[in-house]
Amino acid sequence: MIDPAAVEQVRELATAAGTASRRLALLSRADKDAALRAMADALDAATDDVIKANAEDLQRGRDNGMAQGLLDRLTLDAGRVAGVAQALRDIAALPDPVGEVVRGSTLPNGLEIRQVRVPMGVVGMIYEARPNVTVDAAGLALKSGNAVVLRGGSAAASTNRALVAVLRKALVAQGLPEDAISLLDGGGHDAVRALMTARGLVDLLIPRGGASLIQTVVTESTVPVIETGVGNCHVYVDVAADLDKALAIAVNAKTHRPSVCNAAESLLVHRAVADDFLPKVLAELGGAGVRLHTDEASGAAAEQAGVAHEDATDEDWGTEYLALEMAVRVVDDLDEALEHIRTYGSGHTEAIVTEDRAAARRFTHEVDAAAVMVNASTRFTDGGEFGFGAEIGISTQKLHARGPMGLPELTTTKWVVEGDGQVRA
Amino acid sequence: MIDPAAVEQVRELATAAGTASRRLALLSRADKDAALRAMADALDAATDDVIKANAEDLQRGRDNGMAQGLLDRLTLDAGRVAGVAQALRDIAALPDPVGEVVRGSTLPNGLEIRQVRVPMGVVGMIYEARPNVTVDAAGLALKSGNAVVLRGGSAAASTNRALVAVLRKALVAQGLPEDAISLLDGGGHDAVRALMTARGLVDLLIPRGGASLIQTVVTESTVPVIETGVGNCHVYVDVAADLDKALAIAVNAKTHRPSVCNAAESLLVHRAVADDFLPKVLAELGGAGVRLHTDEASGAAAEQAGVAHEDATDEDWGTEYLALEMAVRVVDDLDEALEHIRTYGSGHTEAIVTEDRAAARRFTHEVDAAAVMVNASTRFTDGGEFGFGAEIGISTQKLHARGPMGLPELTTTKWVVEGDGQVRA
Repeated sequence: MIDPAAVEQVRELATAAGTASRRLALLSRADKDAALRAMADALDAATDDVIKANAEDLQRGRDNGMAQGLLDRLTLDAGRVAGVAQALRDIAALPDPVGEVVRGSTLPNGLEIRQVRVPMGVVGMIYEARPNVTVDAAGLALKSGNAVVLRGGSAAASTNRALVAVLRKALVAQGLPEDAISLLDGGGHDAVRALMTARGLVDLLIPRGGASLIQTVVTESTVPVIETGVGNCHVYVDVAADLDKALAIAVNAKTHRPSVCNAAESLLVHRAVADDFLPKVLAELGGAGVRLHTDEASGAAAEQAGVAHEDATDEDWGTEYLALEMAVRVVDDLDEALEHIRTYGSGHTEAIVTEDRAAARRFTHEVDAAAVMVNASTRFTDGGEFGFGAEIGISTQKLHARGPMGLPELTTTKWVVEGDGQVRA
Repeated sequence: MIDPAAVEQVRELATAAGTASRRLALLSRADKDAALRAMADALDAATDDVIKANAEDLQRGRDNGMAQGLLDRLTLDAGRVAGVAQALRDIAALPDPVGEVVRGSTLPNGLEIRQVRVPMGVVGMIYEARPNVTVDAAGLALKSGNAVVLRGGSAAASTNRALVAVLRKALVAQGLPEDAISLLDGGGHDAVRALMTARGLVDLLIPRGGASLIQTVVTESTVPVIETGVGNCHVYVDVAADLDKALAIAVNAKTHRPSVCNAAESLLVHRAVADDFLPKVLAELGGAGVRLHTDEASGAAAEQAGVAHEDATDEDWGTEYLALEMAVRVVDDLDEALEHIRTYGSGHTEAIVTEDRAAARRFTHEVDAAAVMVNASTRFTDGGEFGFGAEIGISTQKLHARGPMGLPELTTTKWVVEGDGQVRA
């Protein structure tokens, strides 16, 4: 049973968003871009107010003993506010997905059909304590012609309130409906549950955050969801690997930015190159501060190389550390690597390092994941790297969007059929 | 609480299907087409057995007082079995969606990326008592490289058992895994619930059937679902309509095949042409045996024309009759028509009849539906008509697929990234 007040709050918010979305769907690109630039200017102008609101969140966080890493993520200073505003201008510079003709033809009976990209309608975003997501999501939704209902983490409540107030005021000054961007504020978990079950009012829900948030949304939601971001990614070093490339890729995939979903969590090494490769890679990973969870064979190699390590448990293979930690296993062959990935992978990104064309082909064909890399770091699964210009998240589901999501993934399509009186015979 | 035996039955079935799906995903088009043709030949050869099994279902149906229309749908004779077998050969002749490169590019760092169509994995189909769906769904799933778990209506249990046995035997004779096609047999509603909640084992669930089946699947399922087929479709006759076209379209949309989702259920007529148009269209609809539910203005026109009618209730506007029944309303203008469609439409197909370019543009832009027709019958929203060659259903949801679904809609994509040692800087 969800608190009726929360259901009513969401119903009102989403209904108003739906009304706004019908206006947004008809806006020209020029109008949307002008609004995005106005929002950016308004944020710049409101920098002091935003920082003041952010200071309240930070104070509350410190009072509640929030970890330093989370406090860092939560913090907005003048530079970061400017960065967030700039992101809106960058979105304005991207092509408009709405109106794109995906395909079309003239049927034998003369009917002209075309499949046209149109906005989803109302998009809900549920995320944690990074205030930049608030502005990013609002900008991406507006550009794709969608109204957005934002549900940020309570730790960033004051900041989000300040940001959304600035954005809504900028919309009104542009003659646009303020309900194009709204914040679902307060109401606790019941408000989130009401949002997740607002079927018919919310067209799409995108959770961004840790595994438990995503799991909750995916299982409890009756609104269509795009699952994002859990990445238990592997690097497999094949018997035919160039070991210099393998070393660079394994270290980069693990250490370049360990807290993100496309960082590697496990290293699989073919037994035939283990003696050559493991001492080097374990020494380098250990030197970079990576805590190593080893199977028997890689543990022995770590021992010989004098690198600190601990025994991997079954849980390690399935863990997304999001930290300087890595599980290491020696496998007998490509089949065992594929089997390991099938068992433990989360379908995000998997990489093979090999110079053997047949091994690369098998790996790319048989691994079931959003992205499969050959001789490249797992870190490349990213909307920015792929050239999308903006990223709403990385989908690990198979429906609608898989992998990095750009603006087109925030749209659906509509068939437009034009005739001159055709009927079916 | 779902019966643990049903959960276990589905787990075993779906796990075996998953294993089979990994082999299917790697099959060449030639192998899949050969299997489809072998399945067709096997069905032809087993015609007598299938008809015998079907006779059991028909007898049970008659004993249970099944309506004649449903008995007709359930019936397989030699001609229908031949038709079902031919449908498999037709699927063999369609292009293979798997392996299609959707897009691709070379990134500035030399990485070559391409987005490739791959099968979903395991697709569940829940449907009612039309045995042809069993064979169609099996064929479409195989062609798109997916394993399928079929859950047909209990009224067709014997027929479905016979059909699936024939198809599985044909697969084995082709050296393919029989678990590529499996039937979830018995277990009652708990088996359906177990299938709907087999998250991680089933990649996609497609319900095909009446509104209540679809509603149940959509709300109770934790497996990703594509919602199909509920169509409360409207024909709006604008002030600027060519009334001859309007007459032909309204009658065709209602009477050509009233039992299907793209048939029209409501007729909206602009007040300025109501006096001219209503007597003609109501007489023709009435003459075709259509039961008419009229608002005040159209009721008066029916009265004057001497056409039988009854008062429309609010429920009529929201009803998908799927029969020779139609609700008729006179509207003041295009805005009122759009508002009516927004309130009562199910997002399937909406048609306007007009010679006015501005009205057509507003209608196609503002109506939120899978298909929007200008001067054409709603009956054209159909995979066959659109040239897809085969149709799994018509999606009325916005995620993944909207409108008629062909083979590509049974696939997802995978990013393949090839490099020569690239790491992120």
